[in-house]
Amino acid sequence: MFIDTLIERIKEKNNPTVVGLDPRVEYVPGFIRQAAYKEFGMNSKGAAHAILEFNKKIIDAVHDIVPAVKLQSAYYEMYGLEGIGTLMETIKYSKSRGMLVVMDAKRNDIGSTAEAYSSAYLGSAQIGEGNNEAAFDAHALTVNPYFGIDGIKPFIDDCRKYDKGIFILVKTSNKSSGQLQDLLTHNGKSIYEVVAGYVEEWGKPLVGKYGYSGVGAVVGATYPNQAKILRSILKHAYILVPGYGAQGGSARDAAHSFNKDGLGAIINASRSIMCAYQSETWKERFPEENFDEACRAEAIRMRDDILEAI
Amino acid sequence: MFIDTLIERIKEKNNPTVVGLDPRVEYVPGFIRQAAYKEFGMNSKGAAHAILEFNKKIIDAVHDIVPAVKLQSAYYEMYGLEGIGTLMETIKYSKSRGMLVVMDAKRNDIGSTAEAYSSAYLGSAQIGEGNNEAAFDAHALTVNPYFGIDGIKPFIDDCRKYDKGIFILVKTSNKSSGQLQDLLTHNGKSIYEVVAGYVEEWGKPLVGKYGYSGVGAVVGATYPNQAKILRSILKHAYILVPGYGAQGGSARDAAHSFNKDGLGAIINASRSIMCAYQSETWKERFPEENFDEACRAEAIRMRDDILEAI
Repeated sequence: MFIDTLIERIKEKNNPTVVGLDPRVEYVPGFIRQAAYKEFGMNSKGAAHAILEFNKKIIDAVHDIVPAVKLQSAYYEMYGLEGIGTLMETIKYSKSRGMLVVMDAKRNDIGSTAEAYSSAYLGSAQIGEGNNEAAFDAHALTVNPYFGIDGIKPFIDDCRKYDKGIFILVKTSNKSSGQLQDLLTHNGKSIYEVVAGYVEEWGKPLVGKYGYSGVGAVVGATYPNQAKILRSILKHAYILVPGYGAQGGSARDAAHSFNKDGLGAIINASRSIMCAYQSETWKERFPEENFDEACRAEAIRMRDDILEAI
Repeated sequence: MFIDTLIERIKEKNNPTVVGLDPRVEYVPGFIRQAAYKEFGMNSKGAAHAILEFNKKIIDAVHDIVPAVKLQSAYYEMYGLEGIGTLMETIKYSKSRGMLVVMDAKRNDIGSTAEAYSSAYLGSAQIGEGNNEAAFDAHALTVNPYFGIDGIKPFIDDCRKYDKGIFILVKTSNKSSGQLQDLLTHNGKSIYEVVAGYVEEWGKPLVGKYGYSGVGAVVGATYPNQAKILRSILKHAYILVPGYGAQGGSARDAAHSFNKDGLGAIINASRSIMCAYQSETWKERFPEENFDEACRAEAIRMRDDILEAI
């Protein structure tokens, strides 16, 4: 099962973190960007090639110490077909280097359409009699719960069929997440608590050998108090935690999403790793040409920061 | 402004409906499908070519009587890069035939990422100094409100900058939509009412000359009672109404989303139009080769059905 594999990789590497590859072309070091623009033009093709080169170097630099990458779909869709091509190549390359791939696309729709999204990201599309073709084929996908169970079930069915995972948005890391998620229902529970209850219920059939389900949750590191409450509701859900680093969440904040066994959460950082070579911490030590070493150094610093806090 | 243009097209054509192009390759008539498979293979390339041909014929058949198409992203993403290429070609072709294009992609994320999604679907991505490139460039996009205002604001900013529109999910057409959307908050309002209040508030700065905003709402035809309540809260929002036809909503149900002036809503039908040639109503009259005439006949029947009910 995906969730068992994820846990085993986390244990092997002693690293409950995931590197987020959410690349704007401006993040790519100048020498790679200029070379790509020279070869392919200062257009989406050039940008997409620059980003692919950037991603591969980051993956090369962290694949032996980090269990998974998280790819934020928006940053690839923004560069059109060429950008989405880079997304697909990045998925393939991550797998070839032994990393698990979480597609962070937050898909959501009514049942029949959720089925199509699930075919796109987790399963495969039927094309002709008995002939199926996978499009993105990630190991896991983030999804949005606004539609209730019929917008989620097709993904759960494919998790079982194709051995994949999903992470359902519960409490997001952004400032205004409370506008909807913190609303108190008439029985005194907040929306994020109600959604957490659904996640726990929907995930029951997918609990693996370590007691965690293929149906996980997203809870931002920027809300430590809510994370404490959610950790107790989400008894079987693995928690994917955005918001550490550039968004302001600390290791202590993120620590609330772990259980006492040191499992139960995986912390994402995107910009702080991708752009480590530009940071105060690393820019003196690593010139732009060695940006990948800065990524590795920051990934190690982050791992140790999290391990110390839990 | 997008919303003014939409209203003018609806008035010109006396038709408050939109044709949804949410094509599974199985919906494409056999003769088109087989020809595409023969030329490009029984794979995603063949499927994508078959769908593009299918879409173009439908657009040709309805472009003079229907103001807009709604393209459901999932059905294109499912066929990979070739499928997404077909989505882009369909957007271009729809525009070339004078139709407005609503991308139904239900995107959602934190502010910085919502900005990237907005660049992808409504605006353009910056690539190099002072150089921008549009990826999908639709006229409007559906979005999900789970993140609150900071996940919506980047889209609103681009609506103003690029003269576009958004439709925010309020009450969706699926069976389990109430699991989250109908929850009563402690002050007695349901979540869908609270979200409708946000839509109204967020849309104020984008109200056009007919009194409607570029920030619209999605309310399913399958919930007529909720639609009545929502029409009164959403004083300035245009309502995009899915759920008519194949999903079970009637014209009378859909009529609740209109105002007394006959404006305020646009009704979508997807499968009932795309697959009209297979329906009990039309299959005797139109052989498969004339599937496009069946689409037109069904689009006219639907228009008249809606006009009679409002």
